[in-house]
Amino acid sequence: MTISDACYARLEKITGPKNVTREKEELVCYSYDATGDIHLPDAVIFPGTENEISQILQLADQHQIIVVPRGAGSGMTGGAVPVKGGLVISFSRMKKILEIDEKNLLVRVQPGVVVGEIHREVEKRGLFYPPDPASSSVCSIGGNVGECAGGPRAVKYGVTRDYVLGLRAVLVSGEVIQTGVRTAKGVAGYDLTRLIVGSEGTLAVVTEITLKLLPKPETVKTMAVFFNCMQMAARAVSGIMKAGILPRCMEYLDHACLDLVKDALDFKLPETCQALLIIELDGNHQMVRQDSDRVLGICDRFNAIHVMVAGNVVEINRLWQARRALSPILFKIARNKINEDIVVPIDKIPEMVKIIQDIKESYNLTMVSFGHAGDGNIHCNIMYNKADENESIRAHQAVDKLFRQTLRLAGSITGEHGVGVTKLKYLPQEVGSTQIELMRGIKKVFDPNGILNPGKIFS
Amino acid sequence: MTISDACYARLEKITGPKNVTREKEELVCYSYDATGDIHLPDAVIFPGTENEISQILQLADQHQIIVVPRGAGSGMTGGAVPVKGGLVISFSRMKKILEIDEKNLLVRVQPGVVVGEIHREVEKRGLFYPPDPASSSVCSIGGNVGECAGGPRAVKYGVTRDYVLGLRAVLVSGEVIQTGVRTAKGVAGYDLTRLIVGSEGTLAVVTEITLKLLPKPETVKTMAVFFNCMQMAARAVSGIMKAGILPRCMEYLDHACLDLVKDALDFKLPETCQALLIIELDGNHQMVRQDSDRVLGICDRFNAIHVMVAGNVVEINRLWQARRALSPILFKIARNKINEDIVVPIDKIPEMVKIIQDIKESYNLTMVSFGHAGDGNIHCNIMYNKADENESIRAHQAVDKLFRQTLRLAGSITGEHGVGVTKLKYLPQEVGSTQIELMRGIKKVFDPNGILNPGKIFS
Repeated sequence: MTISDACYARLEKITGPKNVTREKEELVCYSYDATGDIHLPDAVIFPGTENEISQILQLADQHQIIVVPRGAGSGMTGGAVPVKGGLVISFSRMKKILEIDEKNLLVRVQPGVVVGEIHREVEKRGLFYPPDPASSSVCSIGGNVGECAGGPRAVKYGVTRDYVLGLRAVLVSGEVIQTGVRTAKGVAGYDLTRLIVGSEGTLAVVTEITLKLLPKPETVKTMAVFFNCMQMAARAVSGIMKAGILPRCMEYLDHACLDLVKDALDFKLPETCQALLIIELDGNHQMVRQDSDRVLGICDRFNAIHVMVAGNVVEINRLWQARRALSPILFKIARNKINEDIVVPIDKIPEMVKIIQDIKESYNLTMVSFGHAGDGNIHCNIMYNKADENESIRAHQAVDKLFRQTLRLAGSITGEHGVGVTKLKYLPQEVGSTQIELMRGIKKVFDPNGILNPGKIFS
Repeated sequence: MTISDACYARLEKITGPKNVTREKEELVCYSYDATGDIHLPDAVIFPGTENEISQILQLADQHQIIVVPRGAGSGMTGGAVPVKGGLVISFSRMKKILEIDEKNLLVRVQPGVVVGEIHREVEKRGLFYPPDPASSSVCSIGGNVGECAGGPRAVKYGVTRDYVLGLRAVLVSGEVIQTGVRTAKGVAGYDLTRLIVGSEGTLAVVTEITLKLLPKPETVKTMAVFFNCMQMAARAVSGIMKAGILPRCMEYLDHACLDLVKDALDFKLPETCQALLIIELDGNHQMVRQDSDRVLGICDRFNAIHVMVAGNVVEINRLWQARRALSPILFKIARNKINEDIVVPIDKIPEMVKIIQDIKESYNLTMVSFGHAGDGNIHCNIMYNKADENESIRAHQAVDKLFRQTLRLAGSITGEHGVGVTKLKYLPQEVGSTQIELMRGIKKVFDPNGILNPGKIFS
């Protein structure tokens, strides 16, 4: 399916010729995401309005042109990669915050807005949008909605789906729907809002998002707690949750991570340190004080060897350095990398940590794990060299094993990255063929010709 | 579509003859809900296991027998009423709490469990299941999932959908699916969990529900604040929310409500009282103390005339009396009653209060309003006598007007009761025909023969 000259001319008419391109060097910029997979689209279009998107979809559906909606391209599973070519819709011209409604605690945005900008703008007004994927300084809210992004604060605040009140979206017919509400409640028919959230651009093209906000917490306290044993760190996480404390973040880095980042830090890691927990509490002053005392008590019980508490924003950023430095370093050191985002019940984290250690040894691979311990979401990175056939096979066997063990522990193969292309073959193991058939059926209702982001999730 | 003797015999075989009935006097018990609409089913079956439900659905689908899943029958829109006859599946034998997992903060239950029992059992363990519809002492969690029930605490804690982590459900084919996760995160494919929540038994028959729990709040503080003007009460609600305070409940009763309940109270209402707010805060001690001071300050600014603060459980129950006494009294006094559950953005509550007043006067009807002011959810009751044709017409005209104005204010025609039968004709006004068509399409994917609870939502 390529785009005919006649169709291309019509696309030029819809958005104006300067807002559509098929120049090879430009296409390259829209051919990849953070997975490193590369597939060139046939063209990229930059609509400025919902109405233009409606016209684009009508044309595409009529002529069976594949359409791939794309946010910032920072996804981890290939959701925005045009694996079968076609027309990429970029939202780089639709990045307005349309409304911040302080009275009703909501914000209405276009899909291209960078998530970090939403954070900044609502916080200026004493409000708070909790989801904060690690890529928040670059990723777009449209991509977050497409993949149902999470982030470290999910342990206390939930994920993107928990904040999407309503959507405007264009169907392949060109028709526009407005789902959901501007209110906390609303049960008018099937929940199309949450069906579209996390559907990875396969059902409709979202053009506007209404997000629920919260009052901004009075204070935040960040602590780094060091352990000389990953097991103990994992058990401390479990202990904190069991004590009824809900930190807003509980991130962990294992020994291999710490080895990688230690030179990038402006503080020295304790000698025997094998694991780091970054714990962040928020709320009113007394609650945070009280909870942080309890958290430190629990960490102490699990033999924490050192604690650093941030007193101000500079110190908070210093503690987060370790976590933030990690992803770029991983990209640098690994020729190839499989980045998994399994999730297990919180009390199974110690067992999962052990399993990852065993896999690493039995397949003789370099593996680096870190993640959102508070919600059981572990980012397990398998580093390998694609050119080394034997290592490549071992890496993929390790993933198979990792997913089998995750499902055995009642976990999920994807906490927040989505299925995309990279987990497509594993999805049936988690949800079974009956659910896949239901999903295919739903897809057909929305997109009978299968033009929307094919090759993702299950097809 | 009646049930043939041969089919009935097979149903007897599935559950044992004592767990299925077609005795007229028994059928009557399963013919209604809180709407007062009555439709006799052809038979009622009381399965004890998921496997029996699977066999029942296979048989029903094969023979085109209508199936209506039924919880406690306390619904407000006819969701559980067998409007087209058929076989009612009662969950009265499937009411076990299967697991309370304190480590992972979740509870796994069968659909027949009464919601109040979940509250009690998890609270014994220091945990908390927030959704608490007014009928929680009788309603079942299966019904709550079917309608996506809300309740007063939604203002802070959200509704049923926000707590359903995963489901087991039987499809019409008899196949069993297990959706969702046991973890805070999980984005493996389309969100079938939240598609089934609120689908009013039209997509699948839910057999097991995994609910997220929270740590139980340290303390709760309940206050009753009296105003001599409903407008001022409504503005106080808006003011509290704008100040960034999130009470767990903010209920209001208007003048007509107070008139009805005043004799049932063991305290005297202030002479000039025209509106009552019941405000409940929870959290840690200092936060609750601090927030309640601020709440009272705001109420004062909006001319509150009297405040009662509960110091203990007995006093809390005393304050809630007013709210709890209301529904039964309404049932007693009204020959017929239309109970609407509109929801508007919080800052539109004062306007909506004025609109309701105008409708009441211009249609010359008795109307009583109360509701969850904190989330904009207003239960507006229109009392009338069906036998009086003129009054009947005026009552229905009033509903039309009420819904039109609700939608004009960017609200929803149903905050928490669902569409069921009573709002079926209004749904297109809110969501439009395109979304209705998508819903019909989804319905067909799950239930091609249309045996599951027909006549509801859109068909």
